[in-house]
Amino acid sequence: MCFIATAPVLLRMVDKASISRYHSKEIVQGERRELSIETFLDSLKYDANGLVTAVVQDYENNEVLMVAFMNREAVRRTLESGRTCFWSRSRQQFWVKGETSGHIQVVKGVYVDCDKDALLVKVEQTGAACHENYRSCFFRLVDADGNETVVSERLTDS
Amino acid sequence: MCFIATAPVLLRMVDKASISRYHSKEIVQGERRELSIETFLDSLKYDANGLVTAVVQDYENNEVLMVAFMNREAVRRTLESGRTCFWSRSRQQFWVKGETSGHIQVVKGVYVDCDKDALLVKVEQTGAACHENYRSCFFRLVDADGNETVVSERLTDS
Repeated sequence: MCFIATAPVLLRMVDKASISRYHSKEIVQGERRELSIETFLDSLKYDANGLVTAVVQDYENNEVLMVAFMNREAVRRTLESGRTCFWSRSRQQFWVKGETSGHIQVVKGVYVDCDKDALLVKVEQTGAACHENYRSCFFRLVDADGNETVVSERLTDS
Repeated sequence: MCFIATAPVLLRMVDKASISRYHSKEIVQGERRELSIETFLDSLKYDANGLVTAVVQDYENNEVLMVAFMNREAVRRTLESGRTCFWSRSRQQFWVKGETSGHIQVVKGVYVDCDKDALLVKVEQTGAACHENYRSCFFRLVDADGNETVVSERLTDS
């Protein structure tokens, strides 16, 4: 929606153009903070394990696809490469989404929350975001009694 | 979208009705797990602090409003009361959204992810979800150079 992140330069250009379509000039001018990448990374509030929460959302229909975690370097790689990069808590290593599955996420916009401890990453998702081959990891609805119902269909690779 | 959670009984009724509108009978019948609330709460994968991540999303336009954390009891209260209840890590206490601000969140659907360590809570949001009076906490766009731009307008209480 907001920018194409295949290259930093292109990203910056498209970003500015799309903001002006959605928002008043006053707001954009009045509340823009020109930071370096290092200053931005320093400004995030990492938890005791050095992580921020990353919510990944489909940039077209706003479906929430998954939640994962990023450390400082994963945030940098995501911003600079235009592909989502996470920190795997279980494997203790970087994890570029789609590297093995081909189900890549092209970054379209990165948003930071008020507390600076969470990022919202809008992406163009190829195939399933979920390792169980659902489009979204949130494929089970829970009712007030704790009953779970699968409410999505598994994708088939063809 | 999926259920009205003002009361458990009503929630269960509407939930089943709405699922049948969106999804095939085979999927609902084949992949429904009848759990008790305790079994469901036990099945979640809490982190070292006893928390799961909760992403809160507007049930109408799918805007991601905020990210917070729930412990076992907060998940239970959210499911049973139909209002979001979180665990404040900074204050180490329960926090019913809107209790003081009036900016309540009526639960419309709760989804659990594949790893069972994150919940997606679709809500009807009254006013601003963000304590800075933006509709969403994710009101700042970050570009590849780390520059931040406010891309939403503050709501005005009238």
